[in-house]
Amino acid sequence: MHTTSSSLAGAVDGARFWADLEAQARIGALSPRGIRRLALDDQDNRARLWLMAQGEALGCSAHYDALGNVFLRREGQEPTLAPLLIGSHLDSQPSAGAYDGTLGVVAGLAVLRTLSEQGIAHRQPVEVVSWTNEEGARFAPGASGSSWFAGGRDAKTILAARDDAGITFQAALADCLALLEAHGARFRSAPVVPHAFLELHIEQGPVLEEKGAPVCVVTGIQGVHWYEVEVDGQANHAGTTPEASRRDAFMGAHALVGALKAAVAAHDDQVRFTIGKFALSPNSVNTIPQQTRFTIDLRHPDPTVLEALDAAFRQLAQREWSGCTARLEATSRVAPVAFDDALVAVLDEAVKAHWPQAPRLVSGAFHDAIHLAHLCPTAMLFTPCRAGISHHPDEHIERADAEVAVRTLMHAVETLLMTRND
Amino acid sequence: MHTTSSSLAGAVDGARFWADLEAQARIGALSPRGIRRLALDDQDNRARLWLMAQGEALGCSAHYDALGNVFLRREGQEPTLAPLLIGSHLDSQPSAGAYDGTLGVVAGLAVLRTLSEQGIAHRQPVEVVSWTNEEGARFAPGASGSSWFAGGRDAKTILAARDDAGITFQAALADCLALLEAHGARFRSAPVVPHAFLELHIEQGPVLEEKGAPVCVVTGIQGVHWYEVEVDGQANHAGTTPEASRRDAFMGAHALVGALKAAVAAHDDQVRFTIGKFALSPNSVNTIPQQTRFTIDLRHPDPTVLEALDAAFRQLAQREWSGCTARLEATSRVAPVAFDDALVAVLDEAVKAHWPQAPRLVSGAFHDAIHLAHLCPTAMLFTPCRAGISHHPDEHIERADAEVAVRTLMHAVETLLMTRND
Repeated sequence: MHTTSSSLAGAVDGARFWADLEAQARIGALSPRGIRRLALDDQDNRARLWLMAQGEALGCSAHYDALGNVFLRREGQEPTLAPLLIGSHLDSQPSAGAYDGTLGVVAGLAVLRTLSEQGIAHRQPVEVVSWTNEEGARFAPGASGSSWFAGGRDAKTILAARDDAGITFQAALADCLALLEAHGARFRSAPVVPHAFLELHIEQGPVLEEKGAPVCVVTGIQGVHWYEVEVDGQANHAGTTPEASRRDAFMGAHALVGALKAAVAAHDDQVRFTIGKFALSPNSVNTIPQQTRFTIDLRHPDPTVLEALDAAFRQLAQREWSGCTARLEATSRVAPVAFDDALVAVLDEAVKAHWPQAPRLVSGAFHDAIHLAHLCPTAMLFTPCRAGISHHPDEHIERADAEVAVRTLMHAVETLLMTRND
Repeated sequence: MHTTSSSLAGAVDGARFWADLEAQARIGALSPRGIRRLALDDQDNRARLWLMAQGEALGCSAHYDALGNVFLRREGQEPTLAPLLIGSHLDSQPSAGAYDGTLGVVAGLAVLRTLSEQGIAHRQPVEVVSWTNEEGARFAPGASGSSWFAGGRDAKTILAARDDAGITFQAALADCLALLEAHGARFRSAPVVPHAFLELHIEQGPVLEEKGAPVCVVTGIQGVHWYEVEVDGQANHAGTTPEASRRDAFMGAHALVGALKAAVAAHDDQVRFTIGKFALSPNSVNTIPQQTRFTIDLRHPDPTVLEALDAAFRQLAQREWSGCTARLEATSRVAPVAFDDALVAVLDEAVKAHWPQAPRLVSGAFHDAIHLAHLCPTAMLFTPCRAGISHHPDEHIERADAEVAVRTLMHAVETLLMTRND
């Protein structure tokens, strides 16, 4: 076992790492840039096979499980120890960039390449994983593979999901599993509880770019509440109905939104409050709206703030707004996750070795790590993407930043492999 | 010529008038109630033929013009005098009540029936008109027949309009004109300038019902400005984008609407301010909106108030709203119309004879009369409709109210026929 803390970080082959990213970007490539690899489609399956081929060339074994999650395993001196797990996902949004998810898988591969090239022996196994259907773009909701793996969701519900063409997750998965089997991957029926899970991901926000930091530790993931709000008024003629006789569902919604904004403003600036969908009925220029429907996306790292706002929103929805009634329904609630302190400390040390002034962030987006955190010590690294743009072909990362990030990941892995004493 | 002022009002055959309304309600009847007579469709044409047949049975001549407007003419002792014109329209919205428009035409027919039954001779001709395509539901914009007749719009533009099936106004009109010709109506190429135009219409608002008045004088029609407003921000991830980095097009629009409302509130309560259409792009629950588009329907009887609000709206649109830019475009401007004082006085006297406490109203909706007012002395009567509902099969009027209204119209016509001294 190696003993210097930085030897392997420096040994990562940056050019090979970048070439791996470019190779992945050719699978499902869009013109002139970006990718389309919907979960379990042909391109997504090709991305899995490419990953398996790279691992096998390094002497790793390839495994898959009942959800199509693919694992490359570099065996440890003590194969019964829980593996150190590194990874992310290879599926994408319909019109996506080449780095969201893929970066974390290819970075894991770079770790395996480095361990192999440097001839490192380690007691515990090291595994790189690609989780199935993180994006949820073809089959909703997302994070199917990681949430099932971590015991958060049952397979039956996941398998019953259908895409827009009516194809079930189960049918698409069966084709994928048959392909993996045919290419020599081994089925692993018993779930493995990892020693720890590490995920490197693009930030998908503007903070790191603004601060000029190529990498940072992510200490947790914000909780998210989704709501649907309906405001009911009375449709009527825009010209003939006096102000006093109106029950205008747009004006009611406008007033309610004003009160919701005021409730949000009473908390700290970590609250994310977004009204992304908003529709009027009948939606006619000269008809007073009968009904308004809108959504709320509310996020905060602290569950007590989310609960306080939940209570405030519910109270506001019970009031009358411009003569209209309102109904608020919570359609989704995901609690915040705080990553494992000890693992965050390891990542912190690794980050500081490469970029001392790096900030710490709380992730505003979901990641597979939010599910793994319920199963084993989990933490993440972020690297910047240009202008925070993702889920779009214009998603872009700087090679120099990505190299610092992958070396930081290698650094942290090395620390973990050295300090594993159980 | 008769000399008593109220003899003819009392002579109107209320049962026959109601039966005429019921007969019209069977043309294009929907189940269980309501009608569908889109401009120049088969049902709308049948409604024209029914009207012509009634007029001819009364010894009136039937005429049509280049836009398919149909006129029943009861000849005067002095045929060269300008005719007194009474009417409205027989076309309807796609799913409409039986009274919007039809009431005014059938009321005109009741006047002709009464003059005929009572053997009244009058110096000037009396004509009842049904204007083509008032509603604009099939071919936009509406009031085609009356606006062309009054010289406000050129035929070429009107004829080029297409319905949703791609059929031009011109093609539909050609079929209609051939049908009218085949049924013995005479083409009238030279436009006639009426002595005056009277239109009885349902209020399409709640005021008369609230006041318990069966009829009232309409002193004018509100001016209407239509605007389209666009607010441009930057789409971004709802979870990862800090408040300070957001250019949220929904929040920008919300703030702008607040300012528009405040500008409106600075004026009297006759302002009608409606945001009837409102749309976000990309309209996704977890994406900060890139763009908001909404419409404004602004009405007031006083042109100076409309102009003041126009200037205020334009100024507000030039400011930045939550980091977003705004653009405001006026898509339609119709100036308010104040009806002819002398004609309003005649109607006022007639209304007072039948319902002394009746209010005076300014119409919040457009009517054919808004165009005729630019051609000849014009005024209107309103009768209530239940709960102000129109453009819906539930549109409903009370027979007793409608009878008071038609007798009031007959009263006013009698006054005008008696006092005509030119």
